[in-house]
Amino acid sequence: MKLLQFLTAGLLAATALDASAQSSVPDTPAARMARETAPQLFAYTQDVLFGDVWKRKELAPRDRSLVTLSTLVANGQAAQMTSHINLGLDNGLKPSEIVGLITHLAFYTGWPNAMSSVGVAREVFTRRGISADALKPVTEQLLAVEPEAEARRAATVKQNVAPTAPALARYTDDVLFADLWRRQDLAPRDRSIVTMTALIARGQVEQIPFHLNRAMDNGLTQVQAAEVVTHLAFYAGWPRAMSALPVLQTVFAERK
Amino acid sequence: MKLLQFLTAGLLAATALDASAQSSVPDTPAARMARETAPQLFAYTQDVLFGDVWKRKELAPRDRSLVTLSTLVANGQAAQMTSHINLGLDNGLKPSEIVGLITHLAFYTGWPNAMSSVGVAREVFTRRGISADALKPVTEQLLAVEPEAEARRAATVKQNVAPTAPALARYTDDVLFADLWRRQDLAPRDRSIVTMTALIARGQVEQIPFHLNRAMDNGLTQVQAAEVVTHLAFYAGWPRAMSALPVLQTVFAERK
Amino acid sequence: MKLLQFLTAGLLAATALDASAQSSVPDTPAARMARETAPQLFAYTQDVLFGDVWKRKELAPRDRSLVTLSTLVANGQAAQMTSHINLGLDNGLKPSEIVGLITHLAFYTGWPNAMSSVGVAREVFTRRGISADALKPVTEQLLAVEPEAEARRAATVKQNVAPTAPALARYTDDVLFADLWRRQDLAPRDRSIVTMTALIARGQVEQIPFHLNRAMDNGLTQVQAAEVVTHLAFYAGWPRAMSALPVLQTVFAERK
Repeated sequence: MKLLQFLTAGLLAATALDASAQSSVPDTPAARMARETAPQLFAYTQDVLFGDVWKRKELAPRDRSLVTLSTLVANGQAAQMTSHINLGLDNGLKPSEIVGLITHLAFYTGWPNAMSSVGVAREVFTRRGISADALKPVTEQLLAVEPEAEARRAATVKQNVAPTAPALARYTDDVLFADLWRRQDLAPRDRSIVTMTALIARGQVEQIPFHLNRAMDNGLTQVQAAEVVTHLAFYAGWPRAMSALPVLQTVFAERK
Repeated sequence: MKLLQFLTAGLLAATALDASAQSSVPDTPAARMARETAPQLFAYTQDVLFGDVWKRKELAPRDRSLVTLSTLVANGQAAQMTSHINLGLDNGLKPSEIVGLITHLAFYTGWPNAMSSVGVAREVFTRRGISADALKPVTEQLLAVEPEAEARRAATVKQNVAPTAPALARYTDDVLFADLWRRQDLAPRDRSIVTMTALIARGQVEQIPFHLNRAMDNGLTQVQAAEVVTHLAFYAGWPRAMSALPVLQTVFAERK
Repeated sequence: MKLLQFLTAGLLAATALDASAQSSVPDTPAARMARETAPQLFAYTQDVLFGDVWKRKELAPRDRSLVTLSTLVANGQAAQMTSHINLGLDNGLKPSEIVGLITHLAFYTGWPNAMSSVGVAREVFTRRGISADALKPVTEQLLAVEPEAEARRAATVKQNVAPTAPALARYTDDVLFADLWRRQDLAPRDRSIVTMTALIARGQVEQIPFHLNRAMDNGLTQVQAAEVVTHLAFYAGWPRAMSALPVLQTVFAERK
C-alpha cells in the first residue's frame, strides 16, 4: 500500500485523525531546511508524524511532549530541543515541569545530558519572557510514599545493590526515592513517563518491568503505555520500540 | 608485534593494500588538530584507518561511506559529518542517496538525528553547488516487493506487534515496508547496509538476524557483512563490533 | 528521609565527607545557568554530586576524572567536556594522559567521538598555555605483556573472531593489544578504568567480564570497581549503573 493510500484510506480516521486539529509541522529552521533538502523526509514529517501520530487520541499532546522531550534529553540531542520545548509549553507543560523533567533525567540519563539541556531551556524561557518565579515549585513539601511498595523496592536494593555498592544503594534510597521521586514539580505519573521513555530511548529494556509497573501504579494505562512506545518509534527509532514491546507484553500479562 | 611491524610485515598486503590508492587522511580541521594535539591518534588514523581499513577490497569505498555516514547519523555525531558527506560524494554516493540514507535513518534511529543531519548535508551541498534538482528522485514509482518474504514479515508483525500496539504495526506495514523500503532514492542493498549499521552502531544486536537475512537476500555477501562489522569497529567502537559478530556467525550458519 | 536529613545525618560522614575538601561546584557557565534556571538540579549538584560523591575516598579524584571524562567521550558529550578537562588537570591528570584517554576511546567508542574530543582538549590546553611538548610521551618504548594472559586472550580471538572476520581479529591482536594497550601515555590500570567506563556508559554489559578481570589484574580493587559504578550512576545515569552491577558481582564471586 502506498503512503498516499495509507493516508487517504481512512483506516485510521476513526481513532487517529481529528479534522479540527492542525496538521502543520512547527515552522522551525530545521523544518524549512528539510522541506527543501529532504522533501521526502519532510513529507513523512508532515503527513505521518505531525499529520497522524501527534493527533492520535491514545495519548494527550502534553504526554507526547513529555515523551519527545525526554527522548531528546536522554539521547543528548540538544540541537533539536528548542522547538520541542516551545511545543511542550504550547501543549500545556509548565516551565517548572520542563525543568523537573530535566532534573529527573540527570539521575536517569546522567548529569551531562541534563546540564546541556538546562542551557537550551533557559534560552527558550528568556525568549518567551518566563521569569525565574515561574520555575519555583509551589511547595517544597514532599509527596507521601505508599509504604508497602516502598518497602518492597527498598528490600530489592538492600539485597541486590547494597552488598556490592553500599553508597549506590544509599543514594538510590535517600536521594532518588526518598527525595527526587517525591518532589512536586513533576507528578508521579509524569516522572514514570519520563523514566520509561529514558529506558526505551537508550535501549535499556531489562529495567522496564520495574518502571512500567510503577508507571501503571501511578495511573498510566496499558493503551497509553503502548502508545508511548509507538510515539518513541519515531523519536528514538523503530528498533528501540520493537525491542521494548515484548517486555511491555510480558508485564501486561503478569498484571492480569 | 609493534604497529610499525604490523604495517610493514606485508601480512595484509595481498588483500588490503593498494599502492595506487591514496593513503592520506582527508585534510580537515579535525585532522589537522589531531596531528598536533593527538599525534598518536593521528598516526592510527593515517596508518591504520585510512592507510589500511579504507583500502581493503572486501568492501567498496562507496559502501564504506554508507557505513560511516550511517554511524554518524545513528549516533548523532553531526560535528563529524561534514568531512564524511564530502568523502561520500567523492566515493560515488549521489546527493539524493545521502538524503535517502538520512530519511531512512529517521525511522531507524529517530527523527532528531535525521533532522540534525539534514542541516549538515544542506551546507555541504550548497558549498559544492549541488542544486535542489539533484535531490529529486528520478521516479516516484515504488519498487515491487517479493510477495512471499513480505507475507512472512507481515505475519510476524501481525502476531507480535499488532495485539499490543496496533498503530505501531500499521505504521510498520504501511509506512516502513510498503513505502520507505520501496522508494528508489536508495537501492534495497544500500538500505540494508544502512539499517544493519544503525543496529550495530547502537548496540541493538537482537534485531540483527531479521535485517542481516534481508541484507543477504538483497545481495550483501557474507564477506561484505563481516567487513561492515570490521569497518564499524573503528567508527562505533570495538565493543559494538565484538557484540555483533556472534549474531552474524549464527545467521551465516543458519543460511547454509 | 529528606535530602536535607540525608546530608546532615552523618551516615556517610565517616567514609565520605572530608571537611578540608572543597564542596563547591566548579564555577562554569553551565553551573551558573543551572543555579538560576534549575535550582533543584543545582542543589543536587552542589550537595550530593560535588558535596558528597566526588569527596568519597573509595576512589581518588584523579580516578573520578578518568571516569567522568571517559563517559563524556564515550557518549559524545563534547559540550560538557571543557570544565571536566580543566577539573581533570586540576586533579592531577597530565595533558598527555587526557590525550591518551581520547586515543584509547577512539578504539573503544569510535573515531568520531575521539575526533570531536581532541578539538575540546586542544582549546583547553591552549588556554592553559600547555605546549605540544607536554603531549609527547616520555618514551616510545612499549610496555611488556604478560605472556600467559596474552596467549589466553589471543586464543579467544582466534577461535571467536578470526573465522568470520579475519581482519578484525588481526586489528584486535596487532593494533589494540600489541600496540595501543602497551603505549606508555596511559598506565594499564588507567586504560582499564577508561575501558570499563566506556562499556558501562554505553550499556555494553556483556563485555564487562573480560575487562573487569583485566582491570583487577591491572590493580583495580573490588571496592574501587564498585565505586566506578557508583560514580557512573551520576554521569551515565542510574540504569547504566544498575545493569552493570550484577555483572560485577558475578566476576567478584568467580575471582574468589
